Amino acid sequence: MDYQAVLEEVAAHARPFVRQGRVADYIPALERVSVDRFGMAVADIHGAVYGVGDWEVPFSVQSISKAFSLALVMAQSHGSQGDGDIWKRVGREPSGTPFNSLVQLEAENGIPRNPFINAGALVVTDRLQTLTGDASTSMLHFLREESGNPHLAFDQAVADSEAEHGDRNAALAHFMASFGNLENPVPSVIEHYFWQCSIEMSCRDLAVAGGFLARHGLRADGSRLLEAREAKRINAVMLTCGTYDAAGEFAYRVGLPAKSGVGGGIIAVIPGRCTLCVWSPGLDARGNSVAGAAALDHFTTLTGWSVF
Amino acid sequence: MDYQAVLEEVAAHARPFVRQGRVADYIPALERVSVDRFGMAVADIHGAVYGVGDWEVPFSVQSISKAFSLALVMAQSHGSQGDGDIWKRVGREPSGTPFNSLVQLEAENGIPRNPFINAGALVVTDRLQTLTGDASTSMLHFLREESGNPHLAFDQAVADSEAEHGDRNAALAHFMASFGNLENPVPSVIEHYFWQCSIEMSCRDLAVAGGFLARHGLRADGSRLLEAREAKRINAVMLTCGTYDAAGEFAYRVGLPAKSGVGGGIIAVIPGRCTLCVWSPGLDARGNSVAGAAALDHFTTLTGWSVF
Amino acid sequence: MDYQAVLEEVAAHARPFVRQGRVADYIPALERVSVDRFGMAVADIHGAVYGVGDWEVPFSVQSISKAFSLALVMAQSHGSQGDGDIWKRVGREPSGTPFNSLVQLEAENGIPRNPFINAGALVVTDRLQTLTGDASTSMLHFLREESGNPHLAFDQAVADSEAEHGDRNAALAHFMASFGNLENPVPSVIEHYFWQCSIEMSCRDLAVAGGFLARHGLRADGSRLLEAREAKRINAVMLTCGTYDAAGEFAYRVGLPAKSGVGGGIIAVIPGRCTLCVWSPGLDARGNSVAGAAALDHFTTLTGWSVF
Amino acid sequence: MDYQAVLEEVAAHARPFVRQGRVADYIPALERVSVDRFGMAVADIHGAVYGVGDWEVPFSVQSISKAFSLALVMAQSHGSQGDGDIWKRVGREPSGTPFNSLVQLEAENGIPRNPFINAGALVVTDRLQTLTGDASTSMLHFLREESGNPHLAFDQAVADSEAEHGDRNAALAHFMASFGNLENPVPSVIEHYFWQCSIEMSCRDLAVAGGFLARHGLRADGSRLLEAREAKRINAVMLTCGTYDAAGEFAYRVGLPAKSGVGGGIIAVIPGRCTLCVWSPGLDARGNSVAGAAALDHFTTLTGWSVF
Repeated sequence: MDYQAVLEEVAAHARPFVRQGRVADYIPALERVSVDRFGMAVADIHGAVYGVGDWEVPFSVQSISKAFSLALVMAQSHGSQGDGDIWKRVGREPSGTPFNSLVQLEAENGIPRNPFINAGALVVTDRLQTLTGDASTSMLHFLREESGNPHLAFDQAVADSEAEHGDRNAALAHFMASFGNLENPVPSVIEHYFWQCSIEMSCRDLAVAGGFLARHGLRADGSRLLEAREAKRINAVMLTCGTYDAAGEFAYRVGLPAKSGVGGGIIAVIPGRCTLCVWSPGLDARGNSVAGAAALDHFTTLTGWSVF
Repeated sequence: MDYQAVLEEVAAHARPFVRQGRVADYIPALERVSVDRFGMAVADIHGAVYGVGDWEVPFSVQSISKAFSLALVMAQSHGSQGDGDIWKRVGREPSGTPFNSLVQLEAENGIPRNPFINAGALVVTDRLQTLTGDASTSMLHFLREESGNPHLAFDQAVADSEAEHGDRNAALAHFMASFGNLENPVPSVIEHYFWQCSIEMSCRDLAVAGGFLARHGLRADGSRLLEAREAKRINAVMLTCGTYDAAGEFAYRVGLPAKSGVGGGIIAVIPGRCTLCVWSPGLDARGNSVAGAAALDHFTTLTGWSVF
Repeated sequence: MDYQAVLEEVAAHARPFVRQGRVADYIPALERVSVDRFGMAVADIHGAVYGVGDWEVPFSVQSISKAFSLALVMAQSHGSQGDGDIWKRVGREPSGTPFNSLVQLEAENGIPRNPFINAGALVVTDRLQTLTGDASTSMLHFLREESGNPHLAFDQAVADSEAEHGDRNAALAHFMASFGNLENPVPSVIEHYFWQCSIEMSCRDLAVAGGFLARHGLRADGSRLLEAREAKRINAVMLTCGTYDAAGEFAYRVGLPAKSGVGGGIIAVIPGRCTLCVWSPGLDARGNSVAGAAALDHFTTLTGWSVF
Repeated sequence: MDYQAVLEEVAAHARPFVRQGRVADYIPALERVSVDRFGMAVADIHGAVYGVGDWEVPFSVQSISKAFSLALVMAQSHGSQGDGDIWKRVGREPSGTPFNSLVQLEAENGIPRNPFINAGALVVTDRLQTLTGDASTSMLHFLREESGNPHLAFDQAVADSEAEHGDRNAALAHFMASFGNLENPVPSVIEHYFWQCSIEMSCRDLAVAGGFLARHGLRADGSRLLEAREAKRINAVMLTCGTYDAAGEFAYRVGLPAKSGVGGGIIAVIPGRCTLCVWSPGLDARGNSVAGAAALDHFTTLTGWSVF
């Protein structure tokens, strides 16, 4: 497979979609990004990396961090209690329509439906905080090591901006706390959650750092982060829950495990082959990058690769 | 009407119901109250007061305070913007089942259904805070003046205890703040709300202090707190929304405007005649005093007074 | 009280509101009615009747029939099992927002919240069918007797039209049947329900026929239809649930027990004094007559009569 | 891969789970089946078939038929309007919790979330009825041809029994009809839907008949039923929506596209390799076969095959 040629063709195909979305505007720090950006990277399981467009430009990872915090909690847990521990506090089912998020949390006694909706990610962050003592810094260190980029950093302006507009996440956290589903104080959990979301990474950084998902759990240095079945399971959760309320549609169109963020990035996995990351800030109504989804769709069409 | 004789008979009738309910146990300060208590007072519109049982024993007013904060906001508002102001931020419709509270808040863009559910009372407290600069102390002063009891006070243990177990109210407040429906900082609104709930009053104090609702808006000293139509409207909201999710049932059985609290108190109004307050800490599944409801039911049967 | 003078003034006041609403258009038979109509009648408890405008023009009673079917079921039941029977199958609580109707029915195991939402009225009709063998004809006969108008009749075009557009009511009925909450076959219950709604009556007819609600349960001929407490309880349910999702607002503005229909009629009760009926086909967004509500509001302002 | 050896080992592993579930009892015809049954078959893409236990015993396919009706509608549609047609009337997203089914249908204007919940399957059946003139017989003929078993038949007792207890499906159908989302009369759609569910097939029949899903759309005779991307997309919908409200959990544990039925059958696909069918009538709380899920889980563990 000539990855570089495929990426060039994918980029050409995705270009017309770039301006169709809307840049996230709920915080000023994200709103400033130009809608014209487009980049894509592929990291194969042998360490080779390919890229096109703005693939080395850092952007805000936002919810893509949720895939890494889940992996870190599962990695930290399997020594002691197995991966079952976190799954008592968060489900593995898709979440249905957004307007149901709170009623489901209420109806299901403060147990979020899955780790990739905000409520679920707050629980995972809370657990990571307990396990590591610092849920955001431990993630940053992991991402630096896996990506091989020691310059990765939090974006304080983004984290502060999130906190200023963080009433909805505070509501979710207090609500779960009222059911006894948080171990740490609400303000601490929210703060680490916002720091995780604020990390800046490029398509290259993310495709490389997510390599363990394509390598059945092996880290960049060959050591084992997760059991093969654990990596497989994170991929399963990404496929069923990774793209907000469009997971079914995304599976239908693209057919790959993926996790998106409102910064416009999407990370996707072809198990046993490669990890992809695409970035374009214009979002559709459900919060997924329009050009990013079109690019992944075209990538699977050109390569014939899909999990189905 | 020989109020004293009626009260004696009502107390005898209600006595068997006293032990049927459960004392609120979500905070220790309430849990300690003996389930055996029962008291009832009637204050007629001419200033006479009658009582039976523990009618002079102070208890925690809890949600009964919501009727007074609404009255104070309406009283403070009619000079300037009319009573329409607060009604842009809170509705006047019954709230349906409890499990819907959050989904309704979500579906209706952060506008609570009525001022007597917690979310609505937080909005009213927020408004009172803006209007007076101190939503809890201004209410305390008003209650002292109207009841003629200068010893009324907050119960700090109760307020602290509420705050410790206040995650659900914090969730509601942050959620409404995310829709822009709070004027003051969340922690300040919650704090004043808890202080209001913690005020200790007896049946006598409450029946006398609520006299303006039976006197079509006139205060104890004869001055006007509310227009007649404003007092009538608070009574209407009490009838349709004043007893949690049992308002329809309460109207069916008792047929009087009323506001209950989880401390076991219920205040009720017979417009143009008198204001009643009954107290017994045992609650039914919906949070209303079992013996209190039975007493009011029997009172209306004996007197033939009802609004219908 | 000079009722005639009051009615004239109320009609003048309501006139500007007549064209503000929209005529119900979900079935052709209702759509054809002119929006310009306005009529109002008062029947006092001594048998005198007063009217203004189109007060003698028949219109489709629609949901106003729900108040009469409830009364007939209560009247038929008290000999045997007391009024408790029907209340095991339908609640007495306001229904919250319309979008919740089905989820509440689902969450509450097929028990509708109250007898005045469609689901609840289907249960009441089902019960009346069991008690009388013919739920629609028995109601028609009752209305002829009470109104003194032997010419009252069903409007077949309306009943047929309802049936043609009756999928939503069929859905509700089948759903309740799946919970075992219907005694008769779904098609039979729906048919009688539509016949009841199709009855044509004037303001005069309705005000006179509803006199028993103001006379504490006594029929036009002085015989007893309901116990006084039963009549009082129907009034309570009308106040808390009688005007669709606007019951709280209606209680706030008007302060009278009332039942409205999408034909544009509203019946209202001043217990111990009189029964009112107003008609104007233009509806607000919640299905209540705009000019009708304005007229009742002004009537209470002029007379000072309200239940609060 | 020695399929036969794998099946024997899987059967031994699944045996202890056989009695853990409960046989569906909502209709007598299903209730009669012994909980002790267990069978499993694998049909590889080259035509070989392997089986273990009760793999040749017919059982009621129930909701497994939903996968075939979707395939038939997609196959019939691509000549004219492409597969887009049906997707305007039914979504592709997982459905969230069961208790939300009706509120989602209401909130989303009568468009079911996906073709594998009952509401969605009714829409697909309605479309198949329009396309073929006989939605149940056309499916039966297709299954006979693909399975090579000319004796496949409807079970009239099951179809009649479903119809007798069919109020909930009638409610869904009428509700969608009220939004204009049915092309054929409600009774006709429901009848064909029940006939489809009543078809009796063995594990062998189903594994063979579902071969086109593993063969990227090719039928047993080598002709094309679906485009490769259409087959891939049905697999995607099976993975995200095929096992009722446990789709996320099933993807997490098993990692294969699958469709289950309350008869205890589950069909699963390993694209490019084989189609599996397992049957054991004991169900878990969400309606999936307990031993069937355990068998598929163990099959993927032994073979290392998963889509992730």
